[in-house]
Amino acid sequence: MDILEIIEKKTRGEELSKAEIEYAVMGYVNKYIADYQMSVLLEAIRINGMSDKEIVDLTDVMLNSGEKIELGFDNVDKHSTGGVGDKTTIVLAPLIASLDVNIAKMSGRGLGHTGGTIDKLEAIEGFKTDMKLEQLKKQVEKIGVALVGQMGNLCPADKKIYALRDVTGTVKSIPLIASSIMSKKLASGASKIVIDLKVGSGALMETMEEAKELARIMVKIGHLNGKETICVLTDMNQPLGYAVGNSLEVLEAIETLKGNGPKDLNELVINLGSLMLSLDKHLPIEEAIEYVENALKNGTGYEKFKELVKYQHGNIDKIPVSSNLIEVKAKKEGYIKSIDALKIGELARKLGAGRLTKEDVIDHEVGFVLHKKVSDKVEKEESLITIYYNDKKVDEQEVLNCFEIVDGVVAKPTLIYDIIK
Amino acid sequence: MDILEIIEKKTRGEELSKAEIEYAVMGYVNKYIADYQMSVLLEAIRINGMSDKEIVDLTDVMLNSGEKIELGFDNVDKHSTGGVGDKTTIVLAPLIASLDVNIAKMSGRGLGHTGGTIDKLEAIEGFKTDMKLEQLKKQVEKIGVALVGQMGNLCPADKKIYALRDVTGTVKSIPLIASSIMSKKLASGASKIVIDLKVGSGALMETMEEAKELARIMVKIGHLNGKETICVLTDMNQPLGYAVGNSLEVLEAIETLKGNGPKDLNELVINLGSLMLSLDKHLPIEEAIEYVENALKNGTGYEKFKELVKYQHGNIDKIPVSSNLIEVKAKKEGYIKSIDALKIGELARKLGAGRLTKEDVIDHEVGFVLHKKVSDKVEKEESLITIYYNDKKVDEQEVLNCFEIVDGVVAKPTLIYDIIK
Repeated sequence: MDILEIIEKKTRGEELSKAEIEYAVMGYVNKYIADYQMSVLLEAIRINGMSDKEIVDLTDVMLNSGEKIELGFDNVDKHSTGGVGDKTTIVLAPLIASLDVNIAKMSGRGLGHTGGTIDKLEAIEGFKTDMKLEQLKKQVEKIGVALVGQMGNLCPADKKIYALRDVTGTVKSIPLIASSIMSKKLASGASKIVIDLKVGSGALMETMEEAKELARIMVKIGHLNGKETICVLTDMNQPLGYAVGNSLEVLEAIETLKGNGPKDLNELVINLGSLMLSLDKHLPIEEAIEYVENALKNGTGYEKFKELVKYQHGNIDKIPVSSNLIEVKAKKEGYIKSIDALKIGELARKLGAGRLTKEDVIDHEVGFVLHKKVSDKVEKEESLITIYYNDKKVDEQEVLNCFEIVDGVVAKPTLIYDIIK
Repeated sequence: MDILEIIEKKTRGEELSKAEIEYAVMGYVNKYIADYQMSVLLEAIRINGMSDKEIVDLTDVMLNSGEKIELGFDNVDKHSTGGVGDKTTIVLAPLIASLDVNIAKMSGRGLGHTGGTIDKLEAIEGFKTDMKLEQLKKQVEKIGVALVGQMGNLCPADKKIYALRDVTGTVKSIPLIASSIMSKKLASGASKIVIDLKVGSGALMETMEEAKELARIMVKIGHLNGKETICVLTDMNQPLGYAVGNSLEVLEAIETLKGNGPKDLNELVINLGSLMLSLDKHLPIEEAIEYVENALKNGTGYEKFKELVKYQHGNIDKIPVSSNLIEVKAKKEGYIKSIDALKIGELARKLGAGRLTKEDVIDHEVGFVLHKKVSDKVEKEESLITIYYNDKKVDEQEVLNCFEIVDGVVAKPTLIYDIIK
């Protein structure tokens, strides 16, 4: 086989065989195919697409490139394609575990606007996210939940290809996204998978059409691998909840577990949580919703969270936020038409809440708290958002520019667009 | 500007501005754009194409990436896109120079089935192809012709990009081919340009449609740069002439200059030569044809060749060919339906006639002499081709397999398909 012939085939838009996909991917991992060749194949895939068969094969090749974790018990995995202010996992994991569902969740740190779930949890003083597999199993057997960093050499092919996609503009490709997400989920020992697929200007998928196609193929890959998989398409045209930044998001997650969460985060938690519960317990969805709502009302989810924090050596009373605050106020009255989630995320990173390179150290104390969301009415000089900063600063005008204020009434945006299973 | 944005734009099939093209090309030359990024842009160009404006801009950027040779006199340049057994330049240059047209031709060595024109000429004992620009000018002023290797740092951007295309499967792209050829022609000081664009299974362009499109855009680039440019579309479905291999091709070129050339080579020389002559002297084409035919008949072209060889220190009596011969004979009688030019070329390289890597040393003495061409009748056990070999050998059956022999009569192939100006 020859990488140039494989490139030629995909350039002409033809279907690659599994052997050809394996040759390209493993050749790249084993360094006999150069990055400038692999990147060309990725671009050909990005432009010409892949058939379902090719995507399933690619997922399988990446899955088999490394270790596969065997947990030895049923567990439900939840994945988010990432968004600004997304603290959903921190709420969902203890909440659903309190309803007797096993949640052994591995999360990445990753680069981004704010840290990953793992970075956010480390805002809790002492919270440990490194754990051996045996320890993880024991903890889940005891308390039903663990939130830990990546473990094992899972999908090294995906890691290497993702790094190349990141620097070659080949990230936004449905076949490449689907195989990357699903190979990692399958390798990390999930029995059932619920994916929160964000759609909108702050998300990987910008249109409903693309998002639906990505959801369809991910669900298909899951089913072909014998794992029930559900994709929920949710809005990411504004930050989720009010808090953006590590400590601030953990505090908002706690409030949500106490039943005082922002409306959108609460709605998302109930939707995703009830799907996870009904998947695991084979319950009708209405019944599952009732269980989840009760667990939020009566505080059993919060009790589980406290247990989780204690088990992972965190001190729940110590989640420090900066005391340097700036209020950014509206220059005119009106209704919030839009909030630029992507820009808010970038500014949070500038404050130190996220990483640009692996070496950057996260400042857990900084970020934003919004006071207004899309469709809210705002008075002139009313506070729109609070900046929490330490040594790094952002331009207030840039923060203000994230809010579009109009005269006429604005409709409440939809949060849950579609559920694909 | 940002290479990822430029990649994104071309991935969506949009037109790049000249500033964007310059940023990408010069960024690659100056090493702040990585090869795995440039290769992705090349693939996006290969799949989505470029507008005429983009191709003209790309040519200009590559042209201006290095030196430009100023010869100080009018001269006609001839370029061939390359084919098996193509010794046309060796015939044409002295022939047209004998008709008072200046030919200062720089040729590459390159990698390929047989050597480039420069390698072929070095089959003549003592022939020097390295020359300073001043020397070249003096020689052309004196005898009207010089055949030399590349000089100066012409189009370094093209050199670097071509090397990347070669290893990433992005060679076959009309915008990339057109800008590569034309930037080099414009940089090497040509006043008028005649391009022999080969079409067929042994050539870069496999269909007439692609070849016409490539010709159209190259002519347009020439005209926009104030250089009269003509493209001749010629057949490359079988080797040109009978000889393939360096010394063998020079000897065939000499026979052609003496008026005893193979029919197809003769026809090509008369067509290209008359176009060059009529371009330079503003003659009607019929008159130009007459001049060229006469120069072949009365030997003035051959006299000029002898003068050229003498000026470049060659000994025309010493063009050694190997004395190890194998005749490959037909296994059945019939008519030659096809001769696989590409395969013949590859086998010639195996014999040592060409290079696979820059380090390979060419054996000038080896190659093939065909005895039959497409449409010729052949008897059983009649010789089809002679192998000239030294230390490296090829499989006779493989050589035989290059010839397709059928029972029914085969029509003579067309040599000149079209002239585009």
